Amino acid sequence: MGKEITSRSEDYSQWYIDLIKKADLAENSDVRGCMVIKPYGYSIWEKMQQALDKMFKDTGHVNAYFPLFVPKSMFEAEEKNAEGFAKECAIVTHYRLKTDPSAKGKLMVDPAAKLEEELVVRPTSEAIIWSTYKKWIQSYRDLPLLINQWANVVRWEMRTRLFLRTAEFLWQEGHTAHATAYEAIKETEQMLDVYAEFAETFMAMPVIKGKKSEGERFPGAIDTYCIEAMMQDGKALQAGTSHFLGQNFAKAFDVQFTSKEGKMELVWGTSWGVSTRLIGALIMAHSDDDGLVLPPKLAPIHVVIVPIFKNEAELLKISEQAEIIAKDLRQQGYSVKFDNRDTHKPGYKFAEYELKGVPVRIAIGPRDLENKTVEVARRDTKEKQLMKMEEVAANIPALLDDIQNNIYQKAFKFRTQMTTTVDSYEEFKKVLDEKGGFVSAHWDGTSETEAAIKEETKATIRCIPLDAAEEEGTCVYSGKPSSKRVLFARAY
Amino acid sequence: MGKEITSRSEDYSQWYIDLIKKADLAENSDVRGCMVIKPYGYSIWEKMQQALDKMFKDTGHVNAYFPLFVPKSMFEAEEKNAEGFAKECAIVTHYRLKTDPSAKGKLMVDPAAKLEEELVVRPTSEAIIWSTYKKWIQSYRDLPLLINQWANVVRWEMRTRLFLRTAEFLWQEGHTAHATAYEAIKETEQMLDVYAEFAETFMAMPVIKGKKSEGERFPGAIDTYCIEAMMQDGKALQAGTSHFLGQNFAKAFDVQFTSKEGKMELVWGTSWGVSTRLIGALIMAHSDDDGLVLPPKLAPIHVVIVPIFKNEAELLKISEQAEIIAKDLRQQGYSVKFDNRDTHKPGYKFAEYELKGVPVRIAIGPRDLENKTVEVARRDTKEKQLMKMEEVAANIPALLDDIQNNIYQKAFKFRTQMTTTVDSYEEFKKVLDEKGGFVSAHWDGTSETEAAIKEETKATIRCIPLDAAEEEGTCVYSGKPSSKRVLFARAY
Repeated sequence: MGKEITSRSEDYSQWYIDLIKKADLAENSDVRGCMVIKPYGYSIWEKMQQALDKMFKDTGHVNAYFPLFVPKSMFEAEEKNAEGFAKECAIVTHYRLKTDPSAKGKLMVDPAAKLEEELVVRPTSEAIIWSTYKKWIQSYRDLPLLINQWANVVRWEMRTRLFLRTAEFLWQEGHTAHATAYEAIKETEQMLDVYAEFAETFMAMPVIKGKKSEGERFPGAIDTYCIEAMMQDGKALQAGTSHFLGQNFAKAFDVQFTSKEGKMELVWGTSWGVSTRLIGALIMAHSDDDGLVLPPKLAPIHVVIVPIFKNEAELLKISEQAEIIAKDLRQQGYSVKFDNRDTHKPGYKFAEYELKGVPVRIAIGPRDLENKTVEVARRDTKEKQLMKMEEVAANIPALLDDIQNNIYQKAFKFRTQMTTTVDSYEEFKKVLDEKGGFVSAHWDGTSETEAAIKEETKATIRCIPLDAAEEEGTCVYSGKPSSKRVLFARAY
Repeated sequence: MGKEITSRSEDYSQWYIDLIKKADLAENSDVRGCMVIKPYGYSIWEKMQQALDKMFKDTGHVNAYFPLFVPKSMFEAEEKNAEGFAKECAIVTHYRLKTDPSAKGKLMVDPAAKLEEELVVRPTSEAIIWSTYKKWIQSYRDLPLLINQWANVVRWEMRTRLFLRTAEFLWQEGHTAHATAYEAIKETEQMLDVYAEFAETFMAMPVIKGKKSEGERFPGAIDTYCIEAMMQDGKALQAGTSHFLGQNFAKAFDVQFTSKEGKMELVWGTSWGVSTRLIGALIMAHSDDDGLVLPPKLAPIHVVIVPIFKNEAELLKISEQAEIIAKDLRQQGYSVKFDNRDTHKPGYKFAEYELKGVPVRIAIGPRDLENKTVEVARRDTKEKQLMKMEEVAANIPALLDDIQNNIYQKAFKFRTQMTTTVDSYEEFKKVLDEKGGFVSAHWDGTSETEAAIKEETKATIRCIPLDAAEEEGTCVYSGKPSSKRVLFARAY
């Protein structure tokens, strides 16, 4: 068990796939590009949802639900958005099956049940939501509208990868409407901050906040903000985006309001989302060759207790102590599993919970009972320590905090080490090929240069960091003047 | 405000629609048959989800997520299920749009992107889930599988009604797999009990537990259990179903396991679900001509505090007291809104919160400050009482319990009064036409009689109550012998 995972150094992609399979997180379904999120994987998503949902509500947002389908004419109203998603849309054209007269027990699409207007399965919900906002917004008193939706969306991806890129995925999408550009930009920035805080505090994953270049913007947005994370193989991963939509969707759907001054004005909008892709990021940011390493704040099980016993009498005595510890920890709000199965050896269980990333493992054997101790092992560093039984419940919270912090610090150090400042294209290519990671370089700000670099190196501009210093320089590719560095990387 | 709702006696259907609109619960979207669940309506769904999810987990279930799409060949594997849903399926046939050369700025379905096999948008997930279970189940050790999914499903309904019947709706669907028929039946019954407990304890809505007749069974089930509720207009509403699937899906998808004895056997299954339809039931069971009446256990806001003031100085003093009360109640876990808007009069606010069904309203005016009292009004009975300010926080929990209980008792009394035992077909028809409600009558057990009665009276067999007494009698329609009474009603 556990040893069947390919090592990261041998084949990082295969390691990722093996890990997802062995840790029972998800699997490919028989439906092209769609995954099944298995119970353990889904329980991580539930933890993410809980934390994010609270953060959204604490910043004044409410949840609602809008239709899965978008009529084609509605979908195409915002032209750039429609153009951007047109090539990856699942389309409903019929609403009925009928018995296939030529094949017994088979069904066929009923040609008589063709829709007058085709329905797009939402790849994102701006169109359906702004067409609804038109009915909800008349006056400045109706603003701001601060709404979030938890939903599934479909984007017909040709090359899929569990969690990172699937035809159907789960996400949340916030859609807000404001009276002024200023307010909408503040909202866009606020939600970027929420995402960054979630990534760093809950996922223990440091992120760079920045803006996308024009070429990488969300179709229909004026500005796309993002958080970018660094994976262990030196590739970047976009973990969340927050878009300032300007008045683009208000124009497309004619959403106007009467201002305080009595004038009719177009509404300003934002949208922002994170998805089950975050589970892929979580795996790739922290896990190791023995399995998942989960930050305690997102771990479905915080502590597992494994009894070491030779017979039922020993198990009985150990169980008594285990239950005391478990009860005490549960009262403090921790999730504790006591694995008293007699069908598996302790070594098997140890490997299983390492695979599943349980942050703390407590082992109790007959000698521990004598000495009134337990063995406490932490998943992140694999360190073990003896702890007095009576102190376990009091010590675990601090240990979990330390694990959360250590996982973050390790990732932070790694990212720092994997961020390289370069001043020539030679160096740029060398770093990408030999080291990977973020490359901080001057760029002339043109789409042409961006495209040429992507074509030649497969690296994209991940973002223009919000905290990038003003610095005179010359573009590594064109030699033209540049005023700040941007971050390039090969990315997921 | 509030007075624009049609009264129940005038037009019950219109009352229902008006109420949903005025209380901001939901609206029809521009997508045929699909609704938008607005924030206030969705917050009720969130409360329902929380309660149900906890009950599912407390009975050993875990959540997972399966694909939205079901390939046609997979969908048709269980013939009865496929036949039952074939006529109401949305079908995806293409995966791309392209620029329409004949219309500027328009898109068209790309004929080159036709799917080899059409995809059915799930109307229910037995097919996709059992095709997955085949991979997960090899041995008796893999059983039982106790999985639930929160998801959207699509059933192309021709006549839709907000919450009660919509083309897309939100629900949960449990799908379990067991080694024996006995275990699967126990599970089916357990989940029926969970639904009944939820309906009665949280929704304050009494329900009859029973089995469906063969004609009303879920397609592909051996037995369908249900809970049936009585609405204020005398029509019944099916509020939840739990199906014993026998080995039907195991056969269709060849899901076998090695038993303890080493034999290959087919797996036994169940499925069970409740949906956003419950919000419709909640509205129709309790609400009145002034708006929603929400049981406290599902109310998004438990208590609203409305200040009565003439100027800012008064508001300031009242606010101090209101904040003390609000803080105290929030610490006890209640949701409290202090509505200090100066743009609306108290009377307007009173009507608004009656409309929204907030169980308790507290009004505080200048005289209350002098007397150290507040006026407490309960939504269910409209009774008002003066309460000492210092006792409010201590008294509210009991008041909320009393409201919860009173709403249930009122509905229970109504249902009792609306359940009529009849022994002749004349009486049967008379009761249906003049009184409505449940009609308890003998039935000969045949589909022919059931169909004839439905044709002639529009009443269906809601269920064969689980607690129906053995009683010799004759069918009201055919005069043939019958051993127990069943419940008929016109239904939603």
